[in-house]
Amino acid sequence: MFKVYGDILSGNCYKIKILMSFLEIPHEWIHVDILAGESHTSIFKDKNPNERIPTLEISADNYLWESNAILNYLADGSTFLPNDKLLRARVLQWQFFEQYSHEPYIATARYINKYLGLPEDRKAEYDGKQEGGHKALAVMDKQLAKTPFFASDSPSIADISLYAYTHVAEEGGFDLSNYKNILRWFNDFEAIPGYLTMDTNNA
Amino acid sequence: MFKVYGDILSGNCYKIKILMSFLEIPHEWIHVDILAGESHTSIFKDKNPNERIPTLEISADNYLWESNAILNYLADGSTFLPNDKLLRARVLQWQFFEQYSHEPYIATARYINKYLGLPEDRKAEYDGKQEGGHKALAVMDKQLAKTPFFASDSPSIADISLYAYTHVAEEGGFDLSNYKNILRWFNDFEAIPGYLTMDTNNA
Repeated sequence: MFKVYGDILSGNCYKIKILMSFLEIPHEWIHVDILAGESHTSIFKDKNPNERIPTLEISADNYLWESNAILNYLADGSTFLPNDKLLRARVLQWQFFEQYSHEPYIATARYINKYLGLPEDRKAEYDGKQEGGHKALAVMDKQLAKTPFFASDSPSIADISLYAYTHVAEEGGFDLSNYKNILRWFNDFEAIPGYLTMDTNNA
Repeated sequence: MFKVYGDILSGNCYKIKILMSFLEIPHEWIHVDILAGESHTSIFKDKNPNERIPTLEISADNYLWESNAILNYLADGSTFLPNDKLLRARVLQWQFFEQYSHEPYIATARYINKYLGLPEDRKAEYDGKQEGGHKALAVMDKQLAKTPFFASDSPSIADISLYAYTHVAEEGGFDLSNYKNILRWFNDFEAIPGYLTMDTNNA
């Protein structure tokens, strides 16, 4: 059985939990407290030398890391990852967009605000995240004006990747009320059978 | 015929050029000068709303962006992208590592130093990139002590992704002389038939 090392309140880990719920994949969830340094122990480094969560244990001594790589692995063969070569690349386009142009702004602002309590010495950094975050949200809203989900007419792991931190963007100071297509997409995403909220009771 | 909008001196664009050379994929290369704002015009935004290069034109009105997504699309069916589901995910693991844990440190330090001339007001940011960059290099070196290439015994697009900015890391102030496995891998990578250097004459 798969083991997932993660924290469901981290968007990157929540992505894995949602997909596993959608696809009803049996697994054991092992909570890792990153603020307590649990991803930096030598035992953890043997699982993931980059010292990050989520990390998937496929079998003893066989680990996979990077949330979006794990999603691609687990979704392969399901409706959440199309077989068509261009659609697969389109899914990846949005996942790389998420990791480079979205997460470093929206997730980091949320982390500084929600987990660290917006300390004075990180206020300038927090403020500096707003412009990039809104730019990413605008790109997303524009796409969702054209297609129901990111890569096509049906939900894929690209939607899971982008939902994870977008739906809690307000915790990073982002007002979403003007992104009407994103709000419509939230409703459609949350109606997918198996959807679960980012809640420690669901881990 | 494919059109690639890019700048070969950008590692993200160079990735595409190398793969196209390895696989002998006919294409037209259209130089985009980002310092002159050419990725922010309304015509360019219609191709890529995220205003970045590289952007691949597959056909009129059909564009794909994000360097690593483009690599996955172009390499599908070749030896540079294995068919095995876990190996494919392993390739992605290293590509997402590259975009999140490597590029923002090593490529950004290089950009500040090489393109902007290390201005005084960005010196602190430049210095701040060194620790994260060396952490990424150490993770890479550790993997390359175990396997000839990143995902397996043979080269894949994961190697292309990581080679692009690593081989010019010294332009960002990173001394590579202690990363013996990375230096060995450079030699092996540069021996692949079709290899070309990051040179404007090769665009």
